[in-house]
Amino acid sequence: MTGTPRPRTPGTRDRILTAAREEFSARGYEKTSVRGIAKAAGVDSALVHHYFGTKEQVFEAAVEVAFAPAMNAPNAVADGPVEGVGERLTRFVLGVWDNPATRAPLVAILRSAVTNETAAAVFRRLVATQLMRRVAAQLHLPDAELRAELAAAQIVGTALMRYVIKLEPLASADLEQIIARVAPVVQGHLTAP
Amino acid sequence: MTGTPRPRTPGTRDRILTAAREEFSARGYEKTSVRGIAKAAGVDSALVHHYFGTKEQVFEAAVEVAFAPAMNAPNAVADGPVEGVGERLTRFVLGVWDNPATRAPLVAILRSAVTNETAAAVFRRLVATQLMRRVAAQLHLPDAELRAELAAAQIVGTALMRYVIKLEPLASADLEQIIARVAPVVQGHLTAP
Repeated sequence: MTGTPRPRTPGTRDRILTAAREEFSARGYEKTSVRGIAKAAGVDSALVHHYFGTKEQVFEAAVEVAFAPAMNAPNAVADGPVEGVGERLTRFVLGVWDNPATRAPLVAILRSAVTNETAAAVFRRLVATQLMRRVAAQLHLPDAELRAELAAAQIVGTALMRYVIKLEPLASADLEQIIARVAPVVQGHLTAP
Repeated sequence: MTGTPRPRTPGTRDRILTAAREEFSARGYEKTSVRGIAKAAGVDSALVHHYFGTKEQVFEAAVEVAFAPAMNAPNAVADGPVEGVGERLTRFVLGVWDNPATRAPLVAILRSAVTNETAAAVFRRLVATQLMRRVAAQLHLPDAELRAELAAAQIVGTALMRYVIKLEPLASADLEQIIARVAPVVQGHLTAP
C-alpha cells in the first residue's frame, strides 16, 4: 500500500495519538492493540501503521507527546546557576505529576514500564536519554549519568509513593513542603563532591 | 461448610501460599484467581477460602511471606546508633532486591501495587505500617512518618530504576557504590534537622 495517496486530514495524526494515549492509559501497554487505537480514533488500522509503524512506535509517540513539555524543560532546568538545578528539576517534575491533567499519562507510562519490557525500553529511552542525560550533560562530571539516575530515583520514587501508591502522610502533604525536602537531596545527588 | 473437619495436611497452607506467590508473580493481581491458585496448589478453591478468605487476603498473606525476613528487620535496622540507621535500612532493602531469589516477589508486589488499587492498599499496609512506621517510631520526631516515606521513596525509586526499569549505568553499578550514595540521603531524610 506504500505510495497510495492517503487521506491526510489535518488533525488525523493528533486524533490517533490522543486515542493511543487514552487506550494505553485505560488498558496498559499489553492489552492495547493498534486495532483498538484505530477504532477509538475512527480510522483504519493501516493508517495507524502508516503514521507510526508498530505498537511500540505508537506507544513511544504517545509518550513523547505526554512528555512534550518536559522535552523543552531540560534546557530551562539546566540553565541558570548550578546551585539551583536540584530545585528546578524537582519543582518541574513534581509539578507535572501534581497536575491532574498531565498526571494521567505519566501514571500510564509508569504502569506500562513496570509491567512490560517493551514499555520499559521506551521509558528508558525517553526519560534517561532525553530528560536526565540532558541535565547530566550540564554537570560536566565524570559520573554525571549515575548522579542523574539517583536523582531521578528520588523524584520518581516520591511521585510513585505520593500519586500512585498514595502513602499517607506523603500523599496529602503540601507540595511546597515536599519540594523543600526533596530538592536538596536531588541537588546533592547531582552536584555534591 | 464451616465446622466440617478439613484435611489439614502439614504444609497445605504453605503449598497454597507458594502457589499464590507464583501465580501473582506470573500474572499480576488482576489476572490471578483463587481458583487458579487452588489448581496450582492441587487443592479445592474452598480450602483456599477457608485458610485465607478473599483474593485480597490471599495476596496479603503471600506478600507477608515475601516480606517475612523484612518483618524482623525493622528492629534490627532501628536498633543500634541512630547515625547508622540510613545505612542499615538502605543495605537491608537493596540487599533483598539484589538477591534474585527474593527479588521476584518484590517485583510482583510492586507491579501489582502500581496497576491495582487493592494491591496498592496491601502495599500501603505492609510497607508503610509494618516496615517504615516501625523505623519511624524509633526516631522520636514529630514528622517521623513523612521522613520515613521520603526515605522509602529514595530506596524504592532506586530499586525501581535499577531492577525493574534497568536504567544504565545504575543497573550495572556495584551495589556497594549505590549503597554508599543512597545511605547518606536516607540518613538525611530520617534524622537531619
